[in-house]
Order: sequence, then C-alpha cells, then structure tokens
Amino acid sequence: MQARRKVYVEGSRPDIRVPFAEVPLTGDNPPVRLYDTSGPGSDPEVGLPALRGPWIAERGDVAPVRGAGTPLAGVDGKRPTQLAYARAGIVTPEMEFVAIRESVSPEFVRDEIAAGRAVLPLNVNHPECEPAIIGKAFLVKVNANIGTSAVTSSVAEEVEKLTWATRWGADTVMDLSTGKHIHSTREAIVRNAPVPIGTVPIYQALEKVGGDPVKLSWEVFRETVVEQAEQGVDYMTVHAGVLLPYVPLAVDRVTGIVSRGGSIMAAWCLAHHEENFLYTNFAELCEILARYDVTFSLGDGLRPGSIADANDEAQFAELRTLGELTKIAWEHDVQVMIEGPGHVPMHKIKENVDLQQEWCHEAPFYTLGPLTTDIAPAYDHITSAIGAAMIGMFGTAMLCYVTPKEHLGLPDRDDVKAGVIAYKIAAHAADLAKGHPGAQAWDDALSKARFEFRWEDQFNLALDPETARSYHDATLPAEPAKTAHFCSMCGPKFCSMKITQELKEYAARGMRGKSEEFVAGGSRVYLPLA
Amino acid sequence: MQARRKVYVEGSRPDIRVPFAEVPLTGDNPPVRLYDTSGPGSDPEVGLPALRGPWIAERGDVAPVRGAGTPLAGVDGKRPTQLAYARAGIVTPEMEFVAIRESVSPEFVRDEIAAGRAVLPLNVNHPECEPAIIGKAFLVKVNANIGTSAVTSSVAEEVEKLTWATRWGADTVMDLSTGKHIHSTREAIVRNAPVPIGTVPIYQALEKVGGDPVKLSWEVFRETVVEQAEQGVDYMTVHAGVLLPYVPLAVDRVTGIVSRGGSIMAAWCLAHHEENFLYTNFAELCEILARYDVTFSLGDGLRPGSIADANDEAQFAELRTLGELTKIAWEHDVQVMIEGPGHVPMHKIKENVDLQQEWCHEAPFYTLGPLTTDIAPAYDHITSAIGAAMIGMFGTAMLCYVTPKEHLGLPDRDDVKAGVIAYKIAAHAADLAKGHPGAQAWDDALSKARFEFRWEDQFNLALDPETARSYHDATLPAEPAKTAHFCSMCGPKFCSMKITQELKEYAARGMRGKSEEFVAGGSRVYLPLA
Repeated sequence: MQARRKVYVEGSRPDIRVPFAEVPLTGDNPPVRLYDTSGPGSDPEVGLPALRGPWIAERGDVAPVRGAGTPLAGVDGKRPTQLAYARAGIVTPEMEFVAIRESVSPEFVRDEIAAGRAVLPLNVNHPECEPAIIGKAFLVKVNANIGTSAVTSSVAEEVEKLTWATRWGADTVMDLSTGKHIHSTREAIVRNAPVPIGTVPIYQALEKVGGDPVKLSWEVFRETVVEQAEQGVDYMTVHAGVLLPYVPLAVDRVTGIVSRGGSIMAAWCLAHHEENFLYTNFAELCEILARYDVTFSLGDGLRPGSIADANDEAQFAELRTLGELTKIAWEHDVQVMIEGPGHVPMHKIKENVDLQQEWCHEAPFYTLGPLTTDIAPAYDHITSAIGAAMIGMFGTAMLCYVTPKEHLGLPDRDDVKAGVIAYKIAAHAADLAKGHPGAQAWDDALSKARFEFRWEDQFNLALDPETARSYHDATLPAEPAKTAHFCSMCGPKFCSMKITQELKEYAARGMRGKSEEFVAGGSRVYLPLA
Repeated sequence: MQARRKVYVEGSRPDIRVPFAEVPLTGDNPPVRLYDTSGPGSDPEVGLPALRGPWIAERGDVAPVRGAGTPLAGVDGKRPTQLAYARAGIVTPEMEFVAIRESVSPEFVRDEIAAGRAVLPLNVNHPECEPAIIGKAFLVKVNANIGTSAVTSSVAEEVEKLTWATRWGADTVMDLSTGKHIHSTREAIVRNAPVPIGTVPIYQALEKVGGDPVKLSWEVFRETVVEQAEQGVDYMTVHAGVLLPYVPLAVDRVTGIVSRGGSIMAAWCLAHHEENFLYTNFAELCEILARYDVTFSLGDGLRPGSIADANDEAQFAELRTLGELTKIAWEHDVQVMIEGPGHVPMHKIKENVDLQQEWCHEAPFYTLGPLTTDIAPAYDHITSAIGAAMIGMFGTAMLCYVTPKEHLGLPDRDDVKAGVIAYKIAAHAADLAKGHPGAQAWDDALSKARFEFRWEDQFNLALDPETARSYHDATLPAEPAKTAHFCSMCGPKFCSMKITQELKEYAARGMRGKSEEFVAGGSRVYLPLA
C-alpha cells in the first residue's frame, strides 16, 4: 500500500484546491488527513506553477512596475495586503485556502488577520506560494533556515534543502544566504518555494557595501528591500528596534549581541552615534512593504545568546520598541510578526510570551527555539525543542528551528531534517496542549494502530515513516514481524498490549464471570511463537 | 590538553572520596567541575571495588545470611536502611558522599531522607555503588533501561551498555531483562555498576512459572525478590497498586494497559478474581526489602500509553493507592519512590506532579518521559525529553529515559547514548528552571567560552565533546579554525560575536566619544581572513 497520497479539497471555486497528505489505513480504519507543506513538486529549472496568479490579478490593485513581465506592485497608492483586505471585510481566496487547511471558517481567518493576531505572508510576486497562516489561534508553524555562506554551499544545494525542508513539514523557509550569489540563490529559492520565504535584507545590504557595517545607509537598505520585494520575498526580518540607547545595555552580558543583524545595526549606531536608520525611516519602509504585501518580521537584535542573558533589560527594552513599531506598520496596512529568543531557561519562557503579547498588541510571536540550556552543542535541536514546545503552548505562533549544527557549523541535509522533525514534534505537542481542534486525531490514530499491532499503519502515520520502519526492522527484520502481534521489546511470549487486548475482550462481555471465562479460555494471555 | 580528568574530593574520612569530572580550560579560566557518574572503571571479569564495604560492615547491623561469603541481610530484626539511620539522626558516610556530590550539607541530606522526600537506593549487597540521591531538592537524576529480551542481545552487551550509559551520565540503570539468563545478566550488571541498579522482579517471577501470569503467586514473587535482593539490586519496581477494581477502568482506553508489570498483575487479578497479591502481602514485602535496604519504586501499572489516556481515572486511582502503600513502607523504614507516566500532553503534566506529591506525601516522583505526543515513533527521545524537562521542573526527582527505538525495537549502544544525552539535557534544563545552586555555572562557562571563541573549551565543556568537535570539523576541518575568531555560520568577514566583542571594548572605555574612537580605529568590526 502507498504510505501517503496527496489529496486536494476544493473550495468555493475550482482554483482553490487545498492539499493534504492522506494516510490510508488497513482494515476498516478511516484514512487520516495531515497538513501538507510539500507543495506540488517542481522542476528546479522551471519553478512551480503560479497558483495565486489569478487571485492576485483579479483584485486589480497591482501592476508591473516597469512594464509587462516585470514585477508587480500596488498601483495608485493601493496597499494590496491581506491585512488591508481583511480590514475591508474581504475574504480573499488566500484566506479561504488557509481556512480549509486549518478546518476553521474563512471569516475567522479574516477576523484574526484584521485584528493583527495572525499574518498571511504572501508577496504579490510569489504567486507560487500555498498560503499558510501564522497566528496563535491556528496550528503552530515551523520555519527552517537555509542559505549559502561565505565558507560553503551552492545554489543547487540550497534549493534541494528547501524542497527537503518542506517535505518534512517546514511551513516557511528563511534564506539566510551571505557571501556571493545572494540574488540568484534567492531567485531559485522563491521560484521553487510552495511556502512563504523570509529573508534578512541587511545581510545583502552589507554585501553591497563591502562587508563594512559602518558604510551601510538607509538608501542601500531601501534599494535592497525593493530588490527582494520584487523577487517575491514574503517576509523580512528588520532590526529596527536596536536603538542607540539600548546598545550599552548589552555590554555586560555573558554573550553580548548574538544576532547578526542586531550586531550590524549596533555597530552602525555606535560608529555614527546616530539612531538606527531602520527606526528613523520606518514609516517609509512600511510604505514599501505595503506595495508588495511583504510581512514584517521585526527582529530581536538584542535577543539573549545564553541562559545568563535571558529576559534582561536589553532584550525587553527592544521588545517595547517593537510594540511601537507594530502600531506604525498596522497604520500602513502592513502585516507584522515579532521575533523572539533565543536562549531562555524554562521558568522564564512564559514571561516572554506574556510581555510580547501585551506590548506588541497580540501580533504573532515568532521565536528561535528557545534553547533551555547552553551545555549541549551538537544537540541544540533537542535543548531548543523543549523550549519551543513550551513557548508554543504559551501562544507563540511560529517556531524557528535549530539544527544539531547550531553554534558549530552549517546544517547539511541530515541536519535540516533533524531540525524540522524536532520542531514539528514541538509544534504538534504545543497544538495538543492548546487543545487545537483535530490535533489529537493524529495521535489517537497512531496509538490505536500501535495497540492493535497494525505495524504498517503505525509506520505510515509516523512523522518519519522511513525511520520508524527501519528502526523496527533493525531488531526484527523479517516481513512476518510486521504483522506480528508482538514487538521486540517483550518478545512473543510476553506482551502487555496483547494481554490488555484480551482483558478488553473479556471486559466487553461484562465483568461478571470474567475470571472463569478467562481460565476456561486457557488463560492465553500471550501468543505462541509464530 | 586532556578534555576531562577525574578528581576526587575527600570527605570527613579518607575513604569518602567523591569523584568529579574536571574540565580544564585555557587561559586563566578556572576549571569546571561536573557531576560524574562514570565510576572508577571496571574489568568486567573482576567487577568494581567495594567502596561501601567498610561503611556497611562498621554499622554492625547486617550479617551473611548463610555463613561467610554469602549475601548480607539485617540481623535480629534490624532494618539497615538509610531511612532508618536518617530517622535516628545519623549521618552515614553514604549521606556525606552525596552531600559533597550535591554541594549541600550532610544534615540536609539526612533530613530529606528522614522526611521521605529523598531516597538513597543502596542495597547492602551492592557495596560497589557510588551513592546518588534522588529527591526534588537535589539535582534531577536520569535512569537508563537496559536488559536482554527473548528476541535478542547478550550478557556482555548489556554490561557494555551499563558502562556506556553511566559514561554519558545515567544516574541509575534498570535491568529489565526477560528471557533466559536473567540471573546471570543481573549478577554481571550489579558487580560492574557504580550506580544504583533497579529491576522489575515480576519479570523474572513470570519466567519461573513458564511465562503464564495466571500461575504467578506470592510465594514465587517473594522468592524472586529475595534472590534479587541478595544479589544487590538497589531498587525494585513493584506493581502493588494495580487493584482488581481498577482493571475495568482501563478497558475503554485507546491503549489499555501498556505497563508490562501492570498487565501481568491485571491478568492475574482477573483470572483469579482475587486482589493483587503484591497488595495483600505488602507488609511482608516491606520487611524483606528492609533487611537489604532495597528501595521501593512503586510501579504505575496503569500509566497511560497514549495522549488520549493521560490523567484518567485508572491512572489516578492507582496513584492514590500508591500513596497508601508509601505510608506502609515508611512504617517499615523502607525507602520509597513513585513511578509516573508515560504519555501526557504538556498542559496535563503539572497535575501529575501536584497530585503525586499530595497523595504520596512528597515521596520522590520517578517518571517515564512523559511523551508529549504519539506521532513520532523513532524520535520518542525527543517527544519525551520535552515532557521530562517540564515534569522535572515541576518537581520530579528522576527521569527514566526513552530511546529512539521506543515502541519499535531494542535500544543498541547508539540508542542508549541518544536516550541518555536527551535526558541529561532535560534534567539539566530542569535544574536550571528550579534554580538549583550551581547548575548554571556550567552553562555560563560554556557560553563564555563560545563568546570568546575558545573552541576547544567549548567542545570540552559540551555534554558530548566528541560530537560537538566532529560537527565543527565537518564544516571547517582545518586545525587553525579551532582557534579562529569566527565560525562557519557567518564566515570570517561577518561575525556577530566578534562585532559585539569590539563593541564591548569601546563601551568599556565609556560611552562618551565612542563613535569617534570606533571610526578612528578603522571601524574594524570584523577580522580579515587569516
């Protein structure tokens, strides 16, 4: 039997077709439908089909910026953003798409966006993207970072990592490329991305000025943002909250400033002794993002880089400023999410969400981990999955993954998978803890399959079917073992699941006389060796 | 430089020598001392030296049960238990040993044991054991399960897994062997164990009656417990709380009874329609355990095996009974810990600890995970590390590890390591969240090394130095890279850590005039390529 098949649910019009991964089960067990981020599959040379092309065009509020065939942007001061539509009471096809994905009403999606509690990062120049909503009322999302660096990796590798990450469930992907080929790497990624793509434009701006933060300027940054917006980047990290007066607050930390963008802006502020140009030009930046419907991801340039620095004055001073900037962005109909830490011990996690929600007016929170201890480099997908699950439970809308290579090297294909899997676990655990409707159906289907020794169903329902199957086969490789009513932990003579099944059967006939029946039946509480 | 060296801290007498793993650091950074479970190292053919031999003998309350050279037991109704000593106001060498390990006073250790809030599982027949204390006021401990099964594995392999598990930080090890050679496997394990060893005697009792739970009896069980107590088992899981009236409560669950011991006792109760013989003979069992100072680990035979079954009536009915049994054990001077779940979604974890602490009179809680979702077989070390860290934060004293093979197969050497590492992370994250004095020093030392680009110090301080080093080398293999002031994520031209270090230097000279200095200094916020 095929492990999974892609099925589509059609919306109110035939071009709204929402993908799910359906897992067929054996016997009369109904199939299970899972949220599916893998996209329709693409030929990297061609790119993906423009799913949203007609939806964008029919709204009539964008036009090519430099004539036919050039990128789109809002015309005549129009702000073609999902926030503007939601505020106008419009349910877009994009909103309906995510409503079907999340099993909620389109109106609920619209209202959450209108309130700023959710974002739908969808650049008008990224028609290939399947809409995904990020907000605390929805399924917790996972972002995977990829990108070339000065030291290693190629464009083809990064596109391959994109496809690989979405195959395992990444809901968005950030292209953090530095070094050469930033533009062409990004082009390849966006054209092949069925998920929203995020970037940190200051990285490319820095390349343009030869790598010297002091030479950065608002003009170079603006040009870079326009370039990336025209390519179709769906959300951008902007470190506009790293203000000059906050920089000294980070000086006595154990790990100072660990955000690349944050340290670049801090260096610029200090060198010029001027206020951060992203902050002083923020309103103009909003107008640019509004033209393409680029969503802000307001960066936490002063996030803690160690347990010692968590929840300190520097971090929270910046967070307050991000709250101010959120209101300004909303005045310009620009969608906003807020980035969060980083490294935080468990008992300080909830405060992060509570303050972010209060100060940033319930804009979606998007956190990196957090890592709950610093002692385990090479296992930071685990140290941080703990924190990610908890911060998700408390209301964080999207979790940026951490791979086993964090702090040590660049993630390869295996690391990307390990990071995405750890974070899908964290996100799903958070969905369960939040009581998200329908989330537990997956757990229940898998547990029922396990209890009934439907091994193939158990594998196929697993987050990673291949690995689950291979671990089983490592101990009991024979094909008959996959239909056996026992497993390798207890062996055939001694199986608690089997014992309980028999207990259930007896109980089903009523508790009276059950012991007599049990003994009369030969007290067969285990199966003989097959 | 040697990555780690074993050092000893001497107590009030020369034979109290407490091991630590000391990590020497470069420059004038003081070395860091870590809790060390690896033991003195043993030749499996010889076994470990009898560290506690003199301490046990000098108390004069035990004697060989069948003449010289046979196992020890309490004489003349004496109860040679750490609980009895603590209640009598005595600080034993074992208590002093753990006081040094945990950086607390011996009197504090004694008082926590006397109150039943902590246990020191130390069979008089396991003199090789280095004392380790389990209680919520102390460092959170980790247990690793090993053991042969009917399907696979050998005695030598299991001793190797024991050594391997303690090398990575397992504080106790449970031998869950089934199938043949249970006795000899256990003998080899105990003689080579520098940590407390736990067992589930019902497994061996079942072997003795040919694998048929219905044929079990109090007599067979008692004989098995005595056999294991004489070998030196430090704590035993006893499923005395699976009462006949509770069995029907598990019938409508998604996964029924998943505890092996629980299902065996449930099968026995139903077949005989009699109350659990472990419950009806509990007082006599206490007297047996008291003679050897075997600690009870009161098993949760009705623990939930899936998210759907968490915190249900069956689970909590049994937990109340475990509370009753705790009081009875304490009347007999027997130490007690209480086992807990299993599979629990995050929002239901705290209730488990709160009820356990209330109903079981603050006896130490010892939980399996819990797994926070069922969807990720092959990654249950991660699904459960999330739950383990949280339940540890809430006051659980010991965490039983889960390996990647859980539900799928028997753990091999790599799985044991993966499980122990994931759980050391969870335990340490919990120690940080509980504000355990000194716990954060490890994190701070590692983060400081990271910030100062002391790569070798960072590797050596890591929970798993070899893997951290190999991940770094995978991207930047050259030896000079290990002293480089940059890493592969950003490359040499673009390093946030380096930028902050320079900012710190400027800030240290006062904020006035800093921008002028910065620019005058050439604005060198990054290093050129070496």
